[in-house]
Amino acid sequence: MLVGKQSWIFQQHPVIAATGVSGGPFEANGHLAEDFDILHDDLWMGQDSYEKAQRVLIEEAIQTVVQKGNIQKEDVQFLIAGDLINQITPTSFAARTAQIPYFGLFGACSTSMEGLALASFMVNYQGAKNVLTGASSHNAATEKQFRYPTEYGGQKPPTAQWTATGAGVALVTENKKQENLPYTTSATIGKVIDMGLTDPFNMGGAMAPAAADTISAHFTDLKLDPSHYDLIVTGDLAKIGRETVLDLLENKGLKMNPDRFLDCGLMLYKEDQPVQAGGSGAGCSAIVLYGHLLNQMKKGIYKRILLVATGALLSPLSFQQGESIPCIAHAVSIEI
Amino acid sequence: MLVGKQSWIFQQHPVIAATGVSGGPFEANGHLAEDFDILHDDLWMGQDSYEKAQRVLIEEAIQTVVQKGNIQKEDVQFLIAGDLINQITPTSFAARTAQIPYFGLFGACSTSMEGLALASFMVNYQGAKNVLTGASSHNAATEKQFRYPTEYGGQKPPTAQWTATGAGVALVTENKKQENLPYTTSATIGKVIDMGLTDPFNMGGAMAPAAADTISAHFTDLKLDPSHYDLIVTGDLAKIGRETVLDLLENKGLKMNPDRFLDCGLMLYKEDQPVQAGGSGAGCSAIVLYGHLLNQMKKGIYKRILLVATGALLSPLSFQQGESIPCIAHAVSIEI
Repeated sequence: MLVGKQSWIFQQHPVIAATGVSGGPFEANGHLAEDFDILHDDLWMGQDSYEKAQRVLIEEAIQTVVQKGNIQKEDVQFLIAGDLINQITPTSFAARTAQIPYFGLFGACSTSMEGLALASFMVNYQGAKNVLTGASSHNAATEKQFRYPTEYGGQKPPTAQWTATGAGVALVTENKKQENLPYTTSATIGKVIDMGLTDPFNMGGAMAPAAADTISAHFTDLKLDPSHYDLIVTGDLAKIGRETVLDLLENKGLKMNPDRFLDCGLMLYKEDQPVQAGGSGAGCSAIVLYGHLLNQMKKGIYKRILLVATGALLSPLSFQQGESIPCIAHAVSIEI
Repeated sequence: MLVGKQSWIFQQHPVIAATGVSGGPFEANGHLAEDFDILHDDLWMGQDSYEKAQRVLIEEAIQTVVQKGNIQKEDVQFLIAGDLINQITPTSFAARTAQIPYFGLFGACSTSMEGLALASFMVNYQGAKNVLTGASSHNAATEKQFRYPTEYGGQKPPTAQWTATGAGVALVTENKKQENLPYTTSATIGKVIDMGLTDPFNMGGAMAPAAADTISAHFTDLKLDPSHYDLIVTGDLAKIGRETVLDLLENKGLKMNPDRFLDCGLMLYKEDQPVQAGGSGAGCSAIVLYGHLLNQMKKGIYKRILLVATGALLSPLSFQQGESIPCIAHAVSIEI
């Protein structure tokens, strides 16, 4: 049901019945290693290209979620997913393996919540019984495409972010009123916001206004205030972006409690890992939500969270052509 | 409502209340010039890059559909759109201009029906009152990215297709039972089908099995036979792909009437235009449906059509890495 200008309420409470989360070696050394189903000790995952390695991460996450969800692939109506690689080939090739009718998305690092919003809407209205949705990224594939091959050893400023290697996939199903399964209650779809920033080494700063716009729209549309949530988590604004969004929200009259306002890009890695401002990548919020955060919810630590995935919709070409960075954020609320 | 394995029925009959269609000089000399709202006499559209020119085509189509639909942009809840350019930047930059909450899609040349299916589902279940959906492509931007800059004058085999320059956008709204407006009645979402073809100069041949799979699934899911439709139109299989899909469907026991089985890629250009096997590109089926075909329906020539948009989900990189071409097709039925 549409509420306000750009939000949906999911009255049937579609459940996230199971998740599958895979990751790479950097993630295995990070803060949330225990929340992964599968971790690789090298970046190649047995493949001869990083793009193929990324496909493997998605395939493993799909395989895992299907097993954990105790269903057959044939009983999944739709796969809704995307990534950051040109023409989202890792996801489309994984969809070829899965043989599930497929909606390809492009939302950069906002893809995870674009997909969860669509999956929840479909399930809420009996458009599907079982939907898989997720997002992925691979550090070396992304660096090669957007910046330089990692083998060049290029230096980066402290505002840069580290693309996560991993895939997170969720199984969204009808709510059968089982105990202790998280369910989605609402979503807010973002507009493209571009404040004219042009530095691709400061994505968090560029994306912060989009996050603020969507968070503000969410509270207006749903007539809620921030205290409604135990936790508000942005996708991957990292250090710089998180400070900026807190300022922007305060200017909009929304004072956040910093202890209950986290960022996936600041949760994934340890302090001593050289990730500059923090993690990023389309997989980042998918991994952190479908791994760590849902585990925390199942343990009773959080009952109600809002996940705000942020995406920078630039390309290397748009940057070379002198364009600024258009950004977007989509939010989904999850309760248990 | 889900029917069968991978199809939806839209019981509320969401209407296509208005459309906006823009095109380039090659299209202005083509068969369907009269069905465009805006035609440009050069490929640059006043911009300094072809990607920016493509953005202008989308912006113009959006502007046109909003005017023709007699609504304000502020009353449109969502824009659901995509294109073939890396990170779909033309569409995302147009979404920045439009300031409408935005779902970015990637489905290559299947994007038009991926978007129309989602828009129809949302409107059918009151997830939105007004949704814009569409797709676009630009010949020179696409050639530069997937093959060679057109200025090189590279030769192509007769199986190659010509990427259309243009954008087609539809306004999907609640059905207010107005007379003579086309409405969507069902959609079938395709799986990724890959028969191992690797020749990027024969996309039609590669995509034909995906089209056959989705068409066959559509008739099985909806318990219909081909005579239900006045016209079945594939996205852009062009000459080679159209012959292949007719053979494949016959092998599946679905004998098509060739006079009522058309292809957008064979409708857009004149016989004497040098488009090899025919037109293609994410804009092709969007232009032909939202321009020509809906005009024909409003004139009473067709009452019930099935549009099957086909997409080749490869990238230049996946081709270089020796992968075959994964393909997909999505179908939407439209009645008046």
